[in-house]
Amino acid sequence: MKIDYRREGELVLKNQIDIQLSTNRKEKPSFSNLKFGKTYTDHMFIMDYSREKGWYDPRIVPYQPITLDPAATIFHYGQTIFEGLKAYLSENEEVFLFRPDENIKRLNRSSVRMCIPEVDEELALEALKKLVAIDRDWVPNMEGMSLYIRPFIISTEPNLDVTPSQNYRFMIIMSPVGSFYKEGMDPVKIAVESDYVRAVRGGTGNAKTAGNYAGAMLVQEKASASGYSQVLWLDGNEKKYIEEVGSMNVFFKINGEVVTPELSGSILEGITRKSVIELLKYWGVPVSERRISIDELHEAYQKGQLEEAFGSGTAAVISPIGELFWNNEKMLINDGKTGDLSLKVYKTLTGIQTDKEEDPFGWRVKVD
Amino acid sequence: MKIDYRREGELVLKNQIDIQLSTNRKEKPSFSNLKFGKTYTDHMFIMDYSREKGWYDPRIVPYQPITLDPAATIFHYGQTIFEGLKAYLSENEEVFLFRPDENIKRLNRSSVRMCIPEVDEELALEALKKLVAIDRDWVPNMEGMSLYIRPFIISTEPNLDVTPSQNYRFMIIMSPVGSFYKEGMDPVKIAVESDYVRAVRGGTGNAKTAGNYAGAMLVQEKASASGYSQVLWLDGNEKKYIEEVGSMNVFFKINGEVVTPELSGSILEGITRKSVIELLKYWGVPVSERRISIDELHEAYQKGQLEEAFGSGTAAVISPIGELFWNNEKMLINDGKTGDLSLKVYKTLTGIQTDKEEDPFGWRVKVD
Ligand SMILES: Cc1ncc(COP(=O)(O)O)c(C=O)c1O
Ligand SMILES: Cc1ncc(COP(=O)(O)O)c(C=O)c1O
Repeated sequence: MKIDYRREGELVLKNQIDIQLSTNRKEKPSFSNLKFGKTYTDHMFIMDYSREKGWYDPRIVPYQPITLDPAATIFHYGQTIFEGLKAYLSENEEVFLFRPDENIKRLNRSSVRMCIPEVDEELALEALKKLVAIDRDWVPNMEGMSLYIRPFIISTEPNLDVTPSQNYRFMIIMSPVGSFYKEGMDPVKIAVESDYVRAVRGGTGNAKTAGNYAGAMLVQEKASASGYSQVLWLDGNEKKYIEEVGSMNVFFKINGEVVTPELSGSILEGITRKSVIELLKYWGVPVSERRISIDELHEAYQKGQLEEAFGSGTAAVISPIGELFWNNEKMLINDGKTGDLSLKVYKTLTGIQTDKEEDPFGWRVKVD
Repeated sequence: MKIDYRREGELVLKNQIDIQLSTNRKEKPSFSNLKFGKTYTDHMFIMDYSREKGWYDPRIVPYQPITLDPAATIFHYGQTIFEGLKAYLSENEEVFLFRPDENIKRLNRSSVRMCIPEVDEELALEALKKLVAIDRDWVPNMEGMSLYIRPFIISTEPNLDVTPSQNYRFMIIMSPVGSFYKEGMDPVKIAVESDYVRAVRGGTGNAKTAGNYAGAMLVQEKASASGYSQVLWLDGNEKKYIEEVGSMNVFFKINGEVVTPELSGSILEGITRKSVIELLKYWGVPVSERRISIDELHEAYQKGQLEEAFGSGTAAVISPIGELFWNNEKMLINDGKTGDLSLKVYKTLTGIQTDKEEDPFGWRVKVD
């Protein structure tokens, strides 16, 4: 840790996180009945940035509203990025994070794309762990549940000129979340989107930034109205190659081989995706990252070779896909049931996350 | 006006704008030395939205910070849109807006794309006019200057689920801006961007929404570092067809005909663009909206037929382009000087805006 600047005449360690505990703890909600992302814990992490000081004043404070100038550039030009990861409680009542270093690295990659200054990785990891430790009784102690952690950075300078902000705020907030699979794994129906586009090479698709999500809402709403839980995006250039699903990467088991779209620059580099690939390789299951067109997928389906399909992401971990709707045709996958491989991947990943299974990869990080 | 709902037991006119004047007026900055978008006037307009009430509580209050939950969706999923227009002072000290109804219509079009509820056009226009009237001594009384007006809507519901917000806030803030052309019209140098992409058909390019601007910053920074004031974007699908410049639409005079890219769905439908087209038609100057490739432009340049080029937008009105950099080649346009037609369009539009010229189109709207 570096001694870095003076605050009120005092020497301050740059990486020292100030802690101000809440004196007014909230009542915990009933964990068995949680809606995603509506309840927040007692504390949050904040750190500010200015051109002169760099990132400064890392601190944990009671969860509270923030105050900004209405001209802050976040409200106008959307310079912002975020991350999403989870803390899990084991049967021994220990708390674990899953590959948090990967989230912090991706946070910084997103920031570079959006002209936001990077954060110190070590400090960010320490902030994550400290915050979770302080609010550890918010990690639900029920099967399948977890504490969702949302680090994010917003640009705060009041300035209507379209130019990178001089000031930023890095925050971490947390929200306990219920199980995705209360009544067992239920494969989802997904609609292939052929008109609208989420992202294009040369755009911001591989950064976890607000605009990608705002642009997708209209399409998501249309899909929901037709009974589909999410959309499968095609590439923005030719509307031919498969990209990803709403907030998941996507995998297909075709004739014994697992295929997932390669990192083309327009999809998010999912940490669950990466873990699935590493796990499959570890098991000796053939897996490849490559371009895959919707036509190829349809052909495999017609030949009876499309054996399984699933999405991968922090929220659901693995989400089996039971039906794909494309070109007025419903492609039923594995009779609409969860495939064996999908289930095995799901069980192994959640097992590693919750300390039920061995972790040969060193993915689990304990919070003390 | 409709009587719409009760507030504290009272009947309230839905469209009645409450006014709370500032008792602590700011000192005006020196208008001759203004940086764009750094100084704000004494008041702002606010109106809130909830699913139950619709838009409610339109009010003008002293300019002040706003307070939001850190989980407000604006900070995470960027559901937001904005507008930009100006108020001008005439020689008779009257204040005028330029086609404000067009901005309000575009605001609503942007909102539809971003799943944001539309506002009542009449009320929004009244809010604009009232706010400008209240802060009318902020409209600079110097040649070429104006009061920049920024209406915008942000999503305010605390919710980490990626779904349209249930709550929004519509605000209008204002900022006096200096002249773009203090030392006369100075043509800009623009770099054609062949790697990064601003928008693609099916995306959000034709909505005035934050993500489009955040994504462009990295490229803009690179262009600035090489001495170019802005970039010229090509289409996201083939990187072949000309789209628009940073925050301007673009026009080329080729062999006597004026050409501007058609509204393809990925560029912003500029109000200055629309006005330029209408003006040229009124004058009988041939003008067409069509696809134009960078190759066609280059060919015209080589044949000596690229006579003028200019950008159009609220900020600069008309910005002559003196040089286009593409494929390692500098295309010098009209010897790097402002073209006759560019200048004539500029003078006429600014003349209409400031009541110096006749307004056969009814574009000028007086603020009482
Ligand atoms: C667009 C998008 N793709 C994929 C993912 C999956 O990424 P991860 O596995 O890191 O959660 C997410 C969600 O986090 C996402 O938002
Ligand atoms: C991307 C973009 N294109 C074009 C324009 C020009 O539009 P207008 O003439 O309405 O100002 C703007 C600015 O407003 C813009 O942001």
